[in-house]
Amino acid sequence: MPEPVGPGGVIGILGGGQLGRMLALAAARLGLKCHIYAPPGDNPAFDVAHARTEAGYGDDAALLRFAGAVDVVTYEFENVPLAAAARLARIRPLYPPARALEVSQDRVNEKSFFRDLGIATAPWTHADDPEALARAAAAVGFPGILKTRRLGYDGKGQARIADAEGLRQGIAALGGAGLVYEGFVPFSAEVSVIAARGRDGATAVYDIGENVHRDGILRTTTVPAAIRPETAGAARAIALRTLDALDYVGVIGIELFVVREGEAEHLIVNEFAPRVHNSGHWTLDGCLVSQFEQHVRAVAGWPLADPARHADACMHNLIGAEADDWRSLATRPGAALHLYGKSESRPGRKMGHLTELKRR
Amino acid sequence: MPEPVGPGGVIGILGGGQLGRMLALAAARLGLKCHIYAPPGDNPAFDVAHARTEAGYGDDAALLRFAGAVDVVTYEFENVPLAAAARLARIRPLYPPARALEVSQDRVNEKSFFRDLGIATAPWTHADDPEALARAAAAVGFPGILKTRRLGYDGKGQARIADAEGLRQGIAALGGAGLVYEGFVPFSAEVSVIAARGRDGATAVYDIGENVHRDGILRTTTVPAAIRPETAGAARAIALRTLDALDYVGVIGIELFVVREGEAEHLIVNEFAPRVHNSGHWTLDGCLVSQFEQHVRAVAGWPLADPARHADACMHNLIGAEADDWRSLATRPGAALHLYGKSESRPGRKMGHLTELKRR
Repeated sequence: MPEPVGPGGVIGILGGGQLGRMLALAAARLGLKCHIYAPPGDNPAFDVAHARTEAGYGDDAALLRFAGAVDVVTYEFENVPLAAAARLARIRPLYPPARALEVSQDRVNEKSFFRDLGIATAPWTHADDPEALARAAAAVGFPGILKTRRLGYDGKGQARIADAEGLRQGIAALGGAGLVYEGFVPFSAEVSVIAARGRDGATAVYDIGENVHRDGILRTTTVPAAIRPETAGAARAIALRTLDALDYVGVIGIELFVVREGEAEHLIVNEFAPRVHNSGHWTLDGCLVSQFEQHVRAVAGWPLADPARHADACMHNLIGAEADDWRSLATRPGAALHLYGKSESRPGRKMGHLTELKRR
Repeated sequence: MPEPVGPGGVIGILGGGQLGRMLALAAARLGLKCHIYAPPGDNPAFDVAHARTEAGYGDDAALLRFAGAVDVVTYEFENVPLAAAARLARIRPLYPPARALEVSQDRVNEKSFFRDLGIATAPWTHADDPEALARAAAAVGFPGILKTRRLGYDGKGQARIADAEGLRQGIAALGGAGLVYEGFVPFSAEVSVIAARGRDGATAVYDIGENVHRDGILRTTTVPAAIRPETAGAARAIALRTLDALDYVGVIGIELFVVREGEAEHLIVNEFAPRVHNSGHWTLDGCLVSQFEQHVRAVAGWPLADPARHADACMHNLIGAEADDWRSLATRPGAALHLYGKSESRPGRKMGHLTELKRR
């Protein structure tokens, strides 16, 4: 196991968005420096970083210089090219491990991974040939959701499918190949688990949050989730098995559907993200140590912190023009405003969030 | 009144130490960028800043470029040269106002200011001629403290005086001129008020903290202070009168002595700092909005936030080698660790702090 990165050390972060920015702010609180690596674009994490590399993930010389300038490498998004991750991992410790990227980047790998662990997912199928996919999907049954195997986020690369005709249109619209079909899950709620595993194998799990999406984008996370205590326990257990199976280091976000049958609740995994997660932003204000500091502690080899929550919380994403209302949001009683410093507001773009706390 | 500095705007901060660093981190949370201006040296604020100017305060060209690159100017230390402050204030709004620097930089101005407001200070006198000072000090009485009029901090530039002979030695040791003599105040506690005033004149006062110093350096701040409610009210009133008299914008820290006579408590002002203050660091973890964000809000023309406290707190400064123990400090239950990213640890140097919270 590599040496911990002590105060004054440098955390390398792939990706320059709001998650990288909030990771850098958390690292600074611990006396650590951050070096952000991101392709040209709007990179708000650059504004709070000790050092910046603006280069593509295929730029081998830039990757080498970056690796030479940092003590450990992590990332803020799950679509880091595997070749870049592997290149860096040969030179510096890379956390979470490349295996977590391999699994999460491909829905077939991800669903197979959970199946092998005995963790339930929606019924699913895949085929590269459109005709074979149409037959297999019909066998799973309608309605359902067609998704690209790779590179989906915030509802992009997805189509809801009602019947065989819709399926044909969906397959064509999403490019015909590299698709996965999932049978519809009649869920009553979506929750997520934000959990961490340290280099030493210690784990910490935040309280379960309940998510509301609109147009495929997360709108609110409410903690605690309105689920039975046994369901919360089951969600924690899923997180711990996932972390151990991946020999994971860092924070993970796992989205789960809650399916109710009478009094009973059971859980279906939707997907996981090998990074800090939007549904964990409430921890910035609701816990003494946030998911961002927890991730930094894990990847730097520090002891994990107590994930205890000191308040009930409701986190509202500020999407597009909603953040223009910062003057009044800044005075909302009992609420903390976070803006991400993005230079351009666009519809559907996450510009900030507001966390309302209720003391217990 | 100048326009507020909205998200994406640039706050210029004079000084690159831990206070500038924590101001920059707080500004980032609101989507604001920071440009740090500091002379060459160990400037941990540079590591979290959008832009940096490394130059002396007498470098007119650098000051002009800095002013041209920011929307508003503030500072993290009270010894900003007045000429630099005045230069910048002609080009950009400067908060807190230069008047606050003029008063706080000179103990004679400061004590006269409080006298004119009818706010009690220790008995004091000053004279430029050593013989005259010796006579005036004897009239105030022994014991007492001899202080330089200017540039004192963390107990530097001070000498405790027991008698006339000690006074002669102290005057010689501190350079003979530009000295103030204060009669000893038999205080039972030292408290401080952290308060803010916005551009619109609105004010917000954090709960009073009780300070313990050792060797002239703050060691702990405990909130709430163990004082009577009327005394806390009197401290708040002193802060509000001070803010209004200075037409202040930003956060101020005012140190007060509590003198007990039987059941009664009365307050004596020691000094004020026109900036965020070490005794307000507990607000980072004990409040939804810290003194740092409150200061940023004030100078940027944003509405002030509710300064309500959600926990009892004890802040411990980590001085010199105390911060070397970061591994065990990082796992202290119920505590948040803050390290300042200073490159060199020296005896007496503030390297970080630890805030222990107790939920109410």
